[in-house]
Amino acid sequence: MKITEVRLTPILIADAPVLNVGGVHQPYSPRLVVEVETEDGTCGVGETYGDTVYLGLAERIAGEVVGRELTATNLLLSTAASARTGQHADALSELNSMGLRGSASQDKLRRSVTSAFEVACLDALGRATGLPVHALLGGKVRDRVDYSAYLFYKWAEHPGADDPQDDWGEVLDPAGVVELARRFTERYGFRSIKLKGGVLPPEEEAAAIAALHEAFPGVPLRLDPNGAWSVDTAVRVAEQTADVLEYLEDPTLGTPGMAEVRRRTGVTLATNMCVTAFAEIPEAFATDAVQVVLSDHHYWGGLAATRELAAVCRTWDVAVSMHSNTHLGISLAAMTHVAATIPELQYACDTHRPWQTEDVITEPHRFVDGALPVDDRPGLGVELDRDALARLHERWRTSDVRDRDDVAAMRRAEPGWEPRGFPKW
Amino acid sequence: MKITEVRLTPILIADAPVLNVGGVHQPYSPRLVVEVETEDGTCGVGETYGDTVYLGLAERIAGEVVGRELTATNLLLSTAASARTGQHADALSELNSMGLRGSASQDKLRRSVTSAFEVACLDALGRATGLPVHALLGGKVRDRVDYSAYLFYKWAEHPGADDPQDDWGEVLDPAGVVELARRFTERYGFRSIKLKGGVLPPEEEAAAIAALHEAFPGVPLRLDPNGAWSVDTAVRVAEQTADVLEYLEDPTLGTPGMAEVRRRTGVTLATNMCVTAFAEIPEAFATDAVQVVLSDHHYWGGLAATRELAAVCRTWDVAVSMHSNTHLGISLAAMTHVAATIPELQYACDTHRPWQTEDVITEPHRFVDGALPVDDRPGLGVELDRDALARLHERWRTSDVRDRDDVAAMRRAEPGWEPRGFPKW
Repeated sequence: MKITEVRLTPILIADAPVLNVGGVHQPYSPRLVVEVETEDGTCGVGETYGDTVYLGLAERIAGEVVGRELTATNLLLSTAASARTGQHADALSELNSMGLRGSASQDKLRRSVTSAFEVACLDALGRATGLPVHALLGGKVRDRVDYSAYLFYKWAEHPGADDPQDDWGEVLDPAGVVELARRFTERYGFRSIKLKGGVLPPEEEAAAIAALHEAFPGVPLRLDPNGAWSVDTAVRVAEQTADVLEYLEDPTLGTPGMAEVRRRTGVTLATNMCVTAFAEIPEAFATDAVQVVLSDHHYWGGLAATRELAAVCRTWDVAVSMHSNTHLGISLAAMTHVAATIPELQYACDTHRPWQTEDVITEPHRFVDGALPVDDRPGLGVELDRDALARLHERWRTSDVRDRDDVAAMRRAEPGWEPRGFPKW
Repeated sequence: MKITEVRLTPILIADAPVLNVGGVHQPYSPRLVVEVETEDGTCGVGETYGDTVYLGLAERIAGEVVGRELTATNLLLSTAASARTGQHADALSELNSMGLRGSASQDKLRRSVTSAFEVACLDALGRATGLPVHALLGGKVRDRVDYSAYLFYKWAEHPGADDPQDDWGEVLDPAGVVELARRFTERYGFRSIKLKGGVLPPEEEAAAIAALHEAFPGVPLRLDPNGAWSVDTAVRVAEQTADVLEYLEDPTLGTPGMAEVRRRTGVTLATNMCVTAFAEIPEAFATDAVQVVLSDHHYWGGLAATRELAAVCRTWDVAVSMHSNTHLGISLAAMTHVAATIPELQYACDTHRPWQTEDVITEPHRFVDGALPVDDRPGLGVELDRDALARLHERWRTSDVRDRDDVAAMRRAEPGWEPRGFPKW
């Protein structure tokens, strides 16, 4: 079953003005939809980052995989490595704006792109064989995958008159955080709650966690300041919140700092910043710097690679769960399939999905009791909404937004704004 | 695609009187052939150890998997763990006679058995979908898999008048080893050579390695005394052979001893004794005790688990290759499929296959230039020879041999023989 065509469709999707350590989300965020088609007309779909550097590499890979077996996913990474680097080598520094998911590397760039091809190939293979993607990964070990409410501090609206609107309102204090959590849990039934921090002074964020604990007693809570704190600050907040957090995510930057926070507090630390690639694992595990690795099938390299990461974590008795960035239903389906196959998954996975009002699939996912059922239909179980895809691509085509840039977005509201150096506190 | 039937066929296969640290191979060695059949009549086949304890667990698992999806291989290990333990828990100590592949554990027992079910399921799934097994594992990254000549010291014949014969002759000195190597390389084209040691005093085995080096200059050589040596002996022999061995395999028992040999010599050490399960990896890698893990899909838990092991090794920059025990063509096919999918495989894999004169497949493999082509036919690409299977099962049925016991086999020739304690030298 050979691949006869690859279609790459860059799109812009509406995003809410949610805040993080690096600024604010832009009104529109680039994503890339990858479709593979085989000689018998079977199609499969994948999704990844849509920024210039990813799109450029995807175009080079697309040319290489046409004519290959659909099943030849083990070759994707070496194909990406040998693709003419052209502009993307020079452009790698641009990736530093993606620091929220750790340090940039060619390996991570390649994996971020090949993952969308791998997911598309698995989707097509599933459709061709009548098997759900999870079955192609050894089969589900659970029938539903739990997700977590993902709270952000946010503005009421973007600064531009024509920017997309949302109905979540402003969230800038503990009461707002609790109100947001209530809407998330009531709408979707989430049974654990994460707050994206690194935005306000740590005491204010700790106060928000305390307020969440009071409002939702017994509900597992997480706080993720994206490495914004010094080790001493991290230790202080870790001790303040130790009784109510199920884990503290990336309180400080870097493996040595994380290891020191762990050593001084004994608090469970999760990460999607200090361990974001296989090469970063040995030091982190040797120093007990992280107890939960938050995988992301995009930059870890796909669903098989996510299972490899899970095996590595299992071997060292480190937990694995799932990180999320702005994404659509294609990736949510992929996340759910692979999560369903990992026996030791013990924490609800992160997802940004509730923040995205748009999608490119005909039946957007609906969370029930904070979970998604594992889909047993062939492939990912999703169908592309081609009208929506065309509309979002047209937005991309007629826009000058090509990259996600949280700093630039912040400067639209506050000209001259500069992100504070790390540690912010 | 549900499993409707599982057939377990224990067999005895003829084996040559080859020597190792624990005694001598018996005239007949037990193996177990596992067949799964689906509702549409598709069959798949797997192979594993056939000793009593394995067979008992396989029978319990067989009852559990009927009615399940063929693709549900991720559930096999937990199924094995929850199978009523019955006699096999008590019988675990019997596994200590299997010490040549490391310490015994329930986990290793379960994996040894479930691997045959997983391979059978992958074979059936491949047949049902028209895909070779390697394609179900992400696809081959090479078209041929290199194997190594596997030399043994041996007797000319077994002690019993009715025991099976072989034409390899006696091998008990360097000249015999060289002659054996010549026949192996001429018949099969092997381009690397392993000598199973731990049989004669280390100086004699080092002399055999020197003779091999002289007779086959430039050919990669390996020596495997199965942990027979003290650390000091291992250091001495490692230094003597450092210039001619590509790796020294299990010169001494235990991770601390291996780490000391490595520290004192810098020699590349391979193992299938101190790292034989995921739980043994962290200590071994942290102490640099092994530089090459010799996987064995049987006791590591199957083909997906072998790929997981490869991912762990890749992450720590440890090499991975493949161990072998007495096996037939089903397992050789499985080994070749999974080896074909692992990019970083750099050493030729071990195989006992040339020592087995019998097989249960219609077209036994033929090594060409020391390698096997990667099979692109559906499934494993092998067909059961049902006449041969029935014949070897009848041998099992009418024999009282139920377990491999190299010590008992030695005592047939030398009554009262006792294996020397470790270290032997």
